[in-house]
Amino acid sequence: MTRPQRRTPPERKDRAPRQDRSTETRRRLLDATIESLAKDGWAGTGLTSVADRAGLSRGAAQHHFGTRDELVEAALDHLPAQRIEEIRERGQHLPDGPERLEAVVDLLCDIFGGSLGVASLQLWVGASTDPQLGDLVRKADARFNREIYQLTLELLGFSDEPENRRAVQATLVLVRGFALDAMVRDDKKWRHDVLQAWLPVLERGLA
Amino acid sequence: MTRPQRRTPPERKDRAPRQDRSTETRRRLLDATIESLAKDGWAGTGLTSVADRAGLSRGAAQHHFGTRDELVEAALDHLPAQRIEEIRERGQHLPDGPERLEAVVDLLCDIFGGSLGVASLQLWVGASTDPQLGDLVRKADARFNREIYQLTLELLGFSDEPENRRAVQATLVLVRGFALDAMVRDDKKWRHDVLQAWLPVLERGLA
Repeated sequence: MTRPQRRTPPERKDRAPRQDRSTETRRRLLDATIESLAKDGWAGTGLTSVADRAGLSRGAAQHHFGTRDELVEAALDHLPAQRIEEIRERGQHLPDGPERLEAVVDLLCDIFGGSLGVASLQLWVGASTDPQLGDLVRKADARFNREIYQLTLELLGFSDEPENRRAVQATLVLVRGFALDAMVRDDKKWRHDVLQAWLPVLERGLA
Repeated sequence: MTRPQRRTPPERKDRAPRQDRSTETRRRLLDATIESLAKDGWAGTGLTSVADRAGLSRGAAQHHFGTRDELVEAALDHLPAQRIEEIRERGQHLPDGPERLEAVVDLLCDIFGGSLGVASLQLWVGASTDPQLGDLVRKADARFNREIYQLTLELLGFSDEPENRRAVQATLVLVRGFALDAMVRDDKKWRHDVLQAWLPVLERGLA
């Protein structure tokens, strides 16, 4: 982790420094893992298929991740970080005022129900039949839960009180349910309609 | 389907009539399919492994279901029917009064998060990577949604009005989120706590 950083000599423009290229390849592999999980599921995600998707040889992939387990463990760091990053970024463009609450829930639903979310669901469901994956998923999930909880509280502009905490947790459970639903049918009008049952409770948090 | 029914002669006590034995074998295969989905996932569920689980030969299983697709289609009828039946039965023993609301949600969470629910989640997640399964799941799900919606409305004792309808739909989305959560950690205390934020949504329905 704390490898001494060599001073990199100036390089030709079309060639990234070695360190950057390695980071970039690693990232390509992790993105390919998420894509593979979302499209082919947990059972269809292996070192070879991920390398393939990233346009690399299996050997080149193994240079970064020796085994499927190592790859999945890294993906379990990468996936939540990506989701948080995307929510944080899009969270900067949300409206203020009364329509903010639904906009926050909509943003969460989009991310949880999009390919990042589907990849994550595949891991959850895979974990239910694979105890070792289960341990990894539980750890990654606990970390993600803490971060997404804090971020949601901030986006909603709620103070950190017991009642608000519960309301945010319930919102996140609801969002997971919507994400699941979006996997078989993506009906935003229906979601908007159903959300009207929940918003009045969430509005109390603003008071 | 409308095969003429032979009058069955009296039989020895240890031998069920042929029709009953056939229905029983079919049911055993469908139960084994649900068990296999819950434990081995969609990718691990095939005609051979299901026959195995049911203690039958592949040939005997194929007598009832020619292909994996036929088996899955029948399971997609069987699974929701089982869930509805179990909820209806356990719904008869729920308390009346103010604690009824949480008891209803708890019952739904137990069924959606139990092996019937996990099997169903496996199919949903499998459907996201398999368009043909997706069509079957969507059809079965639309049917199940109508039934579970009606049953929940009855269990809660709500009248069929727009606001109540939304509250019930939202609760069913929440329950799906809890079921997902129960796959990686089963924390009933946490669920009870989070539910306290949700109950006001339902309390309005009683008024």
